Amino acid sequence: MRVPFEELCRVLQSILVETGFETRRAELCARLFADASRDGVHSHGLNRFPRFIETIKNGIVDIHATPELMGSHGAMEQWDGRRGVGNLNAHASMSRAISLARSHGVGCVALRNTNHWMRGGNYGWQAVEARMIGICWTNTMPNLPPWGACEPRLGNNPLVIGVPRTKGHVVLDMAMSQFSYGTLEAYRTRGEQLPVIGGFDLKGEFTCDPGEIESSRRPLPIGFWKGSGLAMMLDIVATLLTQGTATHQITPDVLQETKLSQVFIAFDLPSGDNDALADRIVESVKTAAPAGKETARYPGERTAEVRAENTEKGIPVDPSLWQQVLAMCGESAGK
Amino acid sequence: MRVPFEELCRVLQSILVETGFETRRAELCARLFADASRDGVHSHGLNRFPRFIETIKNGIVDIHATPELMGSHGAMEQWDGRRGVGNLNAHASMSRAISLARSHGVGCVALRNTNHWMRGGNYGWQAVEARMIGICWTNTMPNLPPWGACEPRLGNNPLVIGVPRTKGHVVLDMAMSQFSYGTLEAYRTRGEQLPVIGGFDLKGEFTCDPGEIESSRRPLPIGFWKGSGLAMMLDIVATLLTQGTATHQITPDVLQETKLSQVFIAFDLPSGDNDALADRIVESVKTAAPAGKETARYPGERTAEVRAENTEKGIPVDPSLWQQVLAMCGESAGK
Repeated sequence: MRVPFEELCRVLQSILVETGFETRRAELCARLFADASRDGVHSHGLNRFPRFIETIKNGIVDIHATPELMGSHGAMEQWDGRRGVGNLNAHASMSRAISLARSHGVGCVALRNTNHWMRGGNYGWQAVEARMIGICWTNTMPNLPPWGACEPRLGNNPLVIGVPRTKGHVVLDMAMSQFSYGTLEAYRTRGEQLPVIGGFDLKGEFTCDPGEIESSRRPLPIGFWKGSGLAMMLDIVATLLTQGTATHQITPDVLQETKLSQVFIAFDLPSGDNDALADRIVESVKTAAPAGKETARYPGERTAEVRAENTEKGIPVDPSLWQQVLAMCGESAGK
Repeated sequence: MRVPFEELCRVLQSILVETGFETRRAELCARLFADASRDGVHSHGLNRFPRFIETIKNGIVDIHATPELMGSHGAMEQWDGRRGVGNLNAHASMSRAISLARSHGVGCVALRNTNHWMRGGNYGWQAVEARMIGICWTNTMPNLPPWGACEPRLGNNPLVIGVPRTKGHVVLDMAMSQFSYGTLEAYRTRGEQLPVIGGFDLKGEFTCDPGEIESSRRPLPIGFWKGSGLAMMLDIVATLLTQGTATHQITPDVLQETKLSQVFIAFDLPSGDNDALADRIVESVKTAAPAGKETARYPGERTAEVRAENTEKGIPVDPSLWQQVLAMCGESAGK
């Protein structure tokens, strides 16, 4: 079934208000969840919402906390997220980075002690909608073994890069693991093999079998040793810039994961025909001779298509989940 | 055979002076080549030097050109490299980014119209030696097909991230292709298969055979579609920030490749016990249960070991190449 975007926003907002959010914070928090679902990132949209509410109830997320400025040096600032709402903290941080970039050409906000930002791509889209280049990343709980090891000591540390373009923003949102555990589960449930190797089996051999990787807890970093190195760098840079906690200090439990460190960078565009520069790069990629039936895609292209379809037709939701969420609303309303 | 670091510097400097470099520029340029060899990155050290001289002789590199400031907005600057010496331009740019970061907390230099920076890691080491976090990348000529295409329209766009640490700097230097053409050639020459899949064969199947990938011209991006997206983002961000040329505009010929776009970012470290923060992350990775015989390594660890060995014993050089370089020196001296 499909639900209109506005209805999804309204229902989630209503639940958040009943949970104790101020109206305007509830509105933005709900919209950020709805944006993820609208853009096809269901794992961090509506599907994640019940678990988010659980982390409010179990005390991990403090819905009244707002970020506090802890340090400032020109275009670079440190903020303490005070274990507030992850998506609101992240949105405020990219907003502040954009302001800094307006004043200084480039701006960087290092946010510590925050919670899961849900869909990272949102903050890339936030930057490009302000006509800024945005780069941001987060560390996570340990969920990825370093190359050469079999224990998860790295996070999959999603990295987002966004470039504004009138004909279609270019926004990359990628984790450092080849496949998330959510994706592995989805493939396994459908009885499908992964399209490429995604980790090791219990014997230490590469495998395309999602269940084998779930058993071994050894998903692959992108590019083998390369993504392992990049994941580690993202953690160490975030930890030093924020003076916050690193992956190895974060509780490896989705309901307890907190005190994350995140970095938000915005770049003001130089004056010039930036659309023309970006368009030519996009065209060059899209006109490359295809290996199969479809032409190559640029990051954000499919998002724009899914967004257009879901905006028109409504957002696909799992009917039982939607009933569950409506019940949260009714339940709350009935208190 | 092995050659002492100082001798390597002296010989290369002497050739550069004979080629027309001012003494101090020759000294730095030679040292940057020697640093690469000393750190074990032979492909962009001495081994690359004869080709570098060729690009001076064929007019691609203007040895007298120095970067010119084209635009400035606080902590962000655009410079024109004026097709000068790639490693000197890059070194000057990271140096300027470090100065900007001292004043503004973060500094960014976008350098256009420059030449191959040779070993990118040098500029990461430059930043960490100044106790700064450094991030830099370059675009390149097209040498990597976008995911889903079979024509090289992306560059392998090396990315460097460096974090200072007293017990051993952490420096990542990685291209967006799983293996460079130089590495493929080296494996093929030794008659070895790649340790992991590195590209497609002519039938469009994944292969570990280096020769098959050289034939198909379809090396793999790291993480399949993910590295393809990241390579594209690095190109588009570099092109917009520099207002320079993109990969698709760069001549795909190692002797003609020029007008590259590069980005150099430095971050001043917040006050705090940054060594302790970094040490704990390194320890966490290194104490992870190993999958094989060796513990996991952090980026820059092997570099430091190789550097120590080569500093003590001398830098391994190919004897015939070394004779060739000495002859360039004699030849020049004999003019």
